[in-house]
Amino acid sequence: MTDPNWLDEREQRAWRGFLAVNAAVRGRIARQLQQETGLSSADYAVLVSLSEAPGGRLRVFQLRVAADWEKTRLTHQITRMTARGLVAREPCADDPRGAFVVLTEAGWDAITAAAPRHVEHVRHWFFDALGPEHVDALIEVNEAVTRHLLSASEPCSPCSPCSPSSPGDVPSSCDDVLP
Amino acid sequence: MTDPNWLDEREQRAWRGFLAVNAAVRGRIARQLQQETGLSSADYAVLVSLSEAPGGRLRVFQLRVAADWEKTRLTHQITRMTARGLVAREPCADDPRGAFVVLTEAGWDAITAAAPRHVEHVRHWFFDALGPEHVDALIEVNEAVTRHLLSASEPCSPCSPCSPSSPGDVPSSCDDVLP
Repeated sequence: MTDPNWLDEREQRAWRGFLAVNAAVRGRIARQLQQETGLSSADYAVLVSLSEAPGGRLRVFQLRVAADWEKTRLTHQITRMTARGLVAREPCADDPRGAFVVLTEAGWDAITAAAPRHVEHVRHWFFDALGPEHVDALIEVNEAVTRHLLSASEPCSPCSPCSPSSPGDVPSSCDDVLP
Repeated sequence: MTDPNWLDEREQRAWRGFLAVNAAVRGRIARQLQQETGLSSADYAVLVSLSEAPGGRLRVFQLRVAADWEKTRLTHQITRMTARGLVAREPCADDPRGAFVVLTEAGWDAITAAAPRHVEHVRHWFFDALGPEHVDALIEVNEAVTRHLLSASEPCSPCSPCSPSSPGDVPSSCDDVLP
């Protein structure tokens, strides 16, 4: 076995900064949002994803893709948000083990009230630090990594279809079974 | 109240990419590391922080700063890692409510075995996507945000001192009480 190809000093700075800055910015925004609205950053991410989906409705695997969470974490998150009335579960017409998550009226109210505060915090903690050249550079880095992740990903295996129970552009997939 | 200053299309791309790319890269590395070593990314982050500290020992608030986690999450994490024998708790000489977390021999073994795999994944999922100009740009963005976060942070309030129970450069602070 060859020796590990450890990161050099410049790579360490880039990698550790990539992790630490992201965590710090998310942490500051999350704490302010929680204090002001009672929503955690996880609540907010789910509400945003649903609010942008047709009919405020997504299958669980779609939320999972958006948030890149482990399935167990997302399942618990949805259970808690359902108990608080922010989202509801709807059965999947074609797949008795599948499910949709849909935004409730209380969920819409919560995201509508929180979004203006959230964007203020994003500007304060993130964009206020950056010049236009930083923003352009960041977009380039993000897109280079995204292309790489997509090209290096395993292909998705085929699975059972599921039509939405109301109109909307919802593709089918597996791995979205709620307990 | 003025209208929210919503992000424009370019800012959206930068902000959403900042969140999504980070989550995706961390997710891929975490899943591989978990499969290969049984360590979660949270385990790994704690082990790395401790392994780099003098004597493999930190007060809890120092781990918290490194990982930018909520206190409850870190407390649970340390409880689980203690039960698995990866870290141990040591009382704080000057503060009966304070505590150190220290790497055990099993913890050293775990991080020593995992680190070469981890760096391989970081190269595969992250650096393989980037040219030198991307790395430089990322460092600049990270450092601009870091400077801004530091200048915008609230000053730390004074609190009770705590000397390390063995030699090492451990500063004092509050907010590191274990249950």
